[in-house]
Amino acid sequence: MNNNNIITPRKLPGFMELLPAKQAIFDEMAEKIKSVYKQFAFSPLDTPVLELSEILLAKSGGDIDKELYAFSKGDTNICMRYDLTVPLARFVAMNSEFIEFPFKRYQIGKVYRGEKAQKGRFREFYQCDADIIGLETLPLIADAECLNIADKIFDKLGFKIVNHISNRNILFGYCEDLGVGDKTIDILIILDKLSKIGEKNAKEELYELGIESEKAEKLIYIASLCGEFEETLKKLSPLSQNQTFVQGIEDLKEIYSYLQAYKIPKENYCLDVGIIRGHNYYTGTVFEVNISNHPEFGAVCAGGRYDNLATYYTDKKMPGVGLSIGLTRLFDLLDKNDMLPTLERRNVDVQIIPLGDTLLHSLTLQSYFQDNGIICEINYDNRSFKGKLKEANKRNLPYIIVVGENEVNSLKYSFKDMRMGTQELLSKEECLNVLKNN
Amino acid sequence: MNNNNIITPRKLPGFMELLPAKQAIFDEMAEKIKSVYKQFAFSPLDTPVLELSEILLAKSGGDIDKELYAFSKGDTNICMRYDLTVPLARFVAMNSEFIEFPFKRYQIGKVYRGEKAQKGRFREFYQCDADIIGLETLPLIADAECLNIADKIFDKLGFKIVNHISNRNILFGYCEDLGVGDKTIDILIILDKLSKIGEKNAKEELYELGIESEKAEKLIYIASLCGEFEETLKKLSPLSQNQTFVQGIEDLKEIYSYLQAYKIPKENYCLDVGIIRGHNYYTGTVFEVNISNHPEFGAVCAGGRYDNLATYYTDKKMPGVGLSIGLTRLFDLLDKNDMLPTLERRNVDVQIIPLGDTLLHSLTLQSYFQDNGIICEINYDNRSFKGKLKEANKRNLPYIIVVGENEVNSLKYSFKDMRMGTQELLSKEECLNVLKNN
Repeated sequence: MNNNNIITPRKLPGFMELLPAKQAIFDEMAEKIKSVYKQFAFSPLDTPVLELSEILLAKSGGDIDKELYAFSKGDTNICMRYDLTVPLARFVAMNSEFIEFPFKRYQIGKVYRGEKAQKGRFREFYQCDADIIGLETLPLIADAECLNIADKIFDKLGFKIVNHISNRNILFGYCEDLGVGDKTIDILIILDKLSKIGEKNAKEELYELGIESEKAEKLIYIASLCGEFEETLKKLSPLSQNQTFVQGIEDLKEIYSYLQAYKIPKENYCLDVGIIRGHNYYTGTVFEVNISNHPEFGAVCAGGRYDNLATYYTDKKMPGVGLSIGLTRLFDLLDKNDMLPTLERRNVDVQIIPLGDTLLHSLTLQSYFQDNGIICEINYDNRSFKGKLKEANKRNLPYIIVVGENEVNSLKYSFKDMRMGTQELLSKEECLNVLKNN
Repeated sequence: MNNNNIITPRKLPGFMELLPAKQAIFDEMAEKIKSVYKQFAFSPLDTPVLELSEILLAKSGGDIDKELYAFSKGDTNICMRYDLTVPLARFVAMNSEFIEFPFKRYQIGKVYRGEKAQKGRFREFYQCDADIIGLETLPLIADAECLNIADKIFDKLGFKIVNHISNRNILFGYCEDLGVGDKTIDILIILDKLSKIGEKNAKEELYELGIESEKAEKLIYIASLCGEFEETLKKLSPLSQNQTFVQGIEDLKEIYSYLQAYKIPKENYCLDVGIIRGHNYYTGTVFEVNISNHPEFGAVCAGGRYDNLATYYTDKKMPGVGLSIGLTRLFDLLDKNDMLPTLERRNVDVQIIPLGDTLLHSLTLQSYFQDNGIICEINYDNRSFKGKLKEANKRNLPYIIVVGENEVNSLKYSFKDMRMGTQELLSKEECLNVLKNN
């Protein structure tokens, strides 16, 4: 084939594709998240990437959002999933006879948003979700469990966090109490961006909505309350006697008692009335996790309580609570800020370099190490010996075993510690011993 | 919302979606495959599910196959990947400056074929691929490594296999030698289905192709040779002196020496000249793995050598060899034949049932077990105590800890062994000790 037939290889913009060294870090992060979900006995779920459009878009009456990847195949309208929550709702409604409630499931998978490519936005990205779905009822301990899971995950990933927790009933009830309950949704939209647009602009927007100045100030004050749980509860409690408001306070108190029982460090969470979460379906607990000292990252994990998950697919009442980590975005942020964790498990424990006619012997040696749990590769590239050592250094390989013909005869191998720059002649058992303990 | 607004939930046909108990088995199988790839120091790769159509379909000049999921978004023609090999080719061509050769990568991911839904065929399925890509050259040891990996994987999955190995040069050279080299591709297509259509039909089809009777018989004879490596090589060797043929024999001999050095049990593989593999791009080693005593499953793993992976994207020569396991299809076959492996790692090690006002104490206990590596859940459903125990039995939970108010006071917990039907009062350390050792 000549050059004229060659198509310059490229990928779609807005799709993350990592080189192997970084992919290994990404995978290790995903593994850690999964291991925490599993430690809480969450079950795995793996729904298809494609769904029937009428199912996926039930909420919008089938209207296709511009952001979605949607297409037809034969007579079928198909959509790529844009989150893992709607497919979960479809799954539990379809399979409610076959699963146990409360149903605790995790799913780590790619989701798709065909939005305009822009900095820090991805069209394909991993969501790492865990949700607990009840039938008819679901106690508040489930909400606390999600908060605990979020805390455990970031501890395992090696990042200090602050989890900003609230309950939407606080603001729902407060708006009612102020006599502006009919405008609650619009008010929440404005308060949700309070930290972004500032008090002055928020006040103006509230005024445009028809909220009088004094009430706007009260709303901005309450939405700005953020701090240690007990203290903030003390400031909040006197502000209203509205029943919904009081319910929110009671729920937060109960949650707080659970967080203490879990022994989550107090600096890892706060009560933040300004946490609203855009999604309309949240009805109680809401939370957003920030990396400590990096508020500019925004929420790296978020979630909350929804009273009825599968309302479009079943008349059974299924309250739920969950959390979601946008791993692709988180990884990208960490990468750009030189904050990626280091790999815990090595990609290679030892590389064998055969010299002369020793390949067959080397293969047997490789199997010996592998059977003992060691990650072992044979170097069969066509570089010179010197080139191979240089390459090994570049790749930060910790150990090299050189197998020459002398080594095959003596069964003592040249075992190189690449970081120490030392070398000794060891039997395979001695090599294994070093490899197992380092 | 009333019933009239409810859409009956369903998923697309041809898409596997497992209930949690089976999904856990599926995931454990995928984990095992991954662990073998990692043990051979293969690097992870995770290419996007979506590719530019002009890139993915470079081979076909951009023609969209009916089987593909393809669509447009704005001005961009997009295609869902139908395998992991073409994206790998695109990746190595794009990144050849940033990766080391030989490049050993694994990828476990979903691929898409929009073909007609039929029994045992999936439109979304997992491929578990490992490939080794060289620059300019790649020694035969790489082929043997792929064969060894396939063997190790099925050993780990707990299935006896026979790997049917051949080299396409045997038949390429033999056809040349018979003077029908111009018809090799068509001949291979017929011989590929020999076992399916039988000798008589194969002979007829060869005759229709213009192959005379004696040659057809010779072709059918050679393609039927299958057996122990050394023996079959002995039968093959005298059949031709053609250079390509002889090269195929030499390569198989070399491969055989490696398989022996790896100490792969002899009953796990054979030389089978009838293995051709449909893909045109295979140029040397080809293999298909069968589950022992289940030839009706067909190939559950297959692969081979291709001389030039990325020919559409670069003029650099990149020979490669790889293997692929269609895990979704394999799982489905095992499931339908009651051959699924049992789960090695439990989903739940212990469940805590709080009785009375002991939830906070139970949470602390849960954290204690989890911090010690135990999968521990709190039972907070609203069943009666009896109902909870019944449920635990149904789910085959191995251990239950009942935390009543007496237990909180004495710090001795009712520890139930659900399989033995026994119960004793143990401290948390004693509980942990039992859990760790069972």
